[in-house]
Amino acid sequence: MALIVHKYGGTSVGTVEKIENVADKLIKFKALGHDLVVVVSAMSGETNRLISMAHEIDPKPSPREFDVLVSTGEQVTIALLAMALEKRGQAARSYTGYQVQILTDSTHNKARIRDIQDTQIRKDLSAGRIVVVAGFQGVDENGNITTLGRGGSDTSAVALAAGLKADECQIYTDVDGVYTTDPRMVSEARRLSRITFEEMLEMASLGSKVLQIRAVEFAGKYNVPLRVLSTFEDGEGTLITYEEDNMEDPMISGIAFNRDEAKLTLVGVPDQPGIASNILTPISEANIEVDMIIQNIAENSTTDFTFTVHRNDYEKALEILKEIGKKLGAGQALGDDKIVKISIVGVGMRSHAGIASKMFQALAKEAINIRMISTSEIKISVVVDEKYLELGVRTLHEAFELEKV
Amino acid sequence: MALIVHKYGGTSVGTVEKIENVADKLIKFKALGHDLVVVVSAMSGETNRLISMAHEIDPKPSPREFDVLVSTGEQVTIALLAMALEKRGQAARSYTGYQVQILTDSTHNKARIRDIQDTQIRKDLSAGRIVVVAGFQGVDENGNITTLGRGGSDTSAVALAAGLKADECQIYTDVDGVYTTDPRMVSEARRLSRITFEEMLEMASLGSKVLQIRAVEFAGKYNVPLRVLSTFEDGEGTLITYEEDNMEDPMISGIAFNRDEAKLTLVGVPDQPGIASNILTPISEANIEVDMIIQNIAENSTTDFTFTVHRNDYEKALEILKEIGKKLGAGQALGDDKIVKISIVGVGMRSHAGIASKMFQALAKEAINIRMISTSEIKISVVVDEKYLELGVRTLHEAFELEKV
Repeated sequence: MALIVHKYGGTSVGTVEKIENVADKLIKFKALGHDLVVVVSAMSGETNRLISMAHEIDPKPSPREFDVLVSTGEQVTIALLAMALEKRGQAARSYTGYQVQILTDSTHNKARIRDIQDTQIRKDLSAGRIVVVAGFQGVDENGNITTLGRGGSDTSAVALAAGLKADECQIYTDVDGVYTTDPRMVSEARRLSRITFEEMLEMASLGSKVLQIRAVEFAGKYNVPLRVLSTFEDGEGTLITYEEDNMEDPMISGIAFNRDEAKLTLVGVPDQPGIASNILTPISEANIEVDMIIQNIAENSTTDFTFTVHRNDYEKALEILKEIGKKLGAGQALGDDKIVKISIVGVGMRSHAGIASKMFQALAKEAINIRMISTSEIKISVVVDEKYLELGVRTLHEAFELEKV
Repeated sequence: MALIVHKYGGTSVGTVEKIENVADKLIKFKALGHDLVVVVSAMSGETNRLISMAHEIDPKPSPREFDVLVSTGEQVTIALLAMALEKRGQAARSYTGYQVQILTDSTHNKARIRDIQDTQIRKDLSAGRIVVVAGFQGVDENGNITTLGRGGSDTSAVALAAGLKADECQIYTDVDGVYTTDPRMVSEARRLSRITFEEMLEMASLGSKVLQIRAVEFAGKYNVPLRVLSTFEDGEGTLITYEEDNMEDPMISGIAFNRDEAKLTLVGVPDQPGIASNILTPISEANIEVDMIIQNIAENSTTDFTFTVHRNDYEKALEILKEIGKKLGAGQALGDDKIVKISIVGVGMRSHAGIASKMFQALAKEAINIRMISTSEIKISVVVDEKYLELGVRTLHEAFELEKV
């Protein structure tokens, strides 16, 4: 008998009928003899309905009251799911974040979990009940309702699994696992049966939005085995874990990509100490997040400084960069918002020096020009022209034989 | 400077726009220098929306989970109202029943308030904040969310006023006060500027549904001055109070009526001890509530036993009564669901013996036959045929000159 935490997102509980399907699923699972804690999101559409009412009143509503408002979304779902379980003769009990005491800090709208009280949940599990917990929400030390920010239900589930020392945390979603790359782009894309936390983090942060990044970090930190599965189909999903033994041990696990980037370059920057911060401080002060940063060695006492930002911030960033260029006596500020980033990710590449050259060769063979390169321990990212996105991803998927187990 | 509790029902907060109007109203009121605690209901329609989802799953949903579900309705309103106040520069803070700690017993769906923690509210008031509290809901000693039953927001407001020793509890609604009778029936009906708790109780229980009965009882018990006013128009409303001095001192304050009654009679019942309970026990075991009960003196060792029930329960009650009749060897079970009850209410009648005869004379003059009579300290009720309802009410309103102050 194992203790399993399940998590169902908004699409999985989007209608009363879907909630009833989840109840049926849980009862089958419970019949296997497992203890079950279930974390649910708000019914899809509900959070947006609540937010739009708030915005009718105030485009920037009081953060405290915003949390009081939107936390009702999950509260509706826990009640309906617990009712559906009870209706089927399965004892169940629902808890809000407040009732569990999912203790968080006081940062409204994006609070961080500090502690979880498990006494009552353990009592309910011993009594044979399925425990249903509202995701996305908590309570601070002063009894104020807090929320964890969008997608926070994944984090709630992982935190509960960590707090209860659960055997596994299963995230049910509308995809049936983590793929080697987006199957809509490469039809040969293959579901991974396992992936490491680090790889998952790189995949997630690069746009493979299966799981919330914070949830993966949390799971990694507390070593909670995490599994992504489909709500609507049976299957093993993808297990996200630390253990590397018994891994399929490919050099590369997957190919991630990001269509939302734009690159900016300031040419002819004087090669002086402090110049990078002179450029980036005004950018970050404008609340623009910077992704890749590249600066090559200087020639003739000047260098070219390049970075990427979200495409939405491109115009604003370029304007700021022009100002900075004038102040620093640098050359032109150049930009391009028709670029994408493609990355190969895999813990296996740590010990395989040849990965990078294999990647560059494969792209060169298709005449795809590489604009920027950046690497980390377990990934290599390249920036290429937007038009090469599909071709690049497909070429790399094939080159690293990701379609094969 | 006074401490005032305001209560706004579902119609008063039915849209975001109406919530903003309430915010404007509260700010004007606050500018007078008063401390304000505001109790709100769910936006009109919201509770029904939630209930219908519950009923899709289970026609008799888990009472505990039902409370978790429907209590979200008020939580949405408190957040939106607090946001609207903050947006207008007025510091405000919302609290659920759980957060205040409106402690109730554990009778889900119709819990009774036991105690209210006032520490945090007082702190907020001292800091100049308007405190917004979710009506209708509380928490039991085990941390389960409870609700007080339909209309319970009035009770929440009165209980808060009592707990905080507020100077007045003002119930804002879609009528501008308590009338001598229903103005839709008698155009001369007049708004009362004052009415006693006892009169209000009789008026409310007889179908003048301005306030929830339990709220009036509660206000009477703790001597909380209660005022009914209109959300949408300015005015003094009606003050409900113990104080009888300075009262307008009419003999009769108002005329109430109830269209929802049906009467049943068992004739030829053996005149033996315990016979009344033999008849009523099976009725109450079928969850049928009995209103009037009349038994006259016996003749020839038998008596006729008559009572009234809600019209919805008429068929069921008649069937049961026929069974009882057979068992007791009584005569026929008769019934009539085309009757109504009309009552005159007033603390003044205690000392005026002539009131009853004046009432009966007035009805007789219009050839209205009285089917049943029942009296209490401050009211006289008669049952008449349904067709005489309007005529009876108008006749009595005129006979007691209720249109005059």
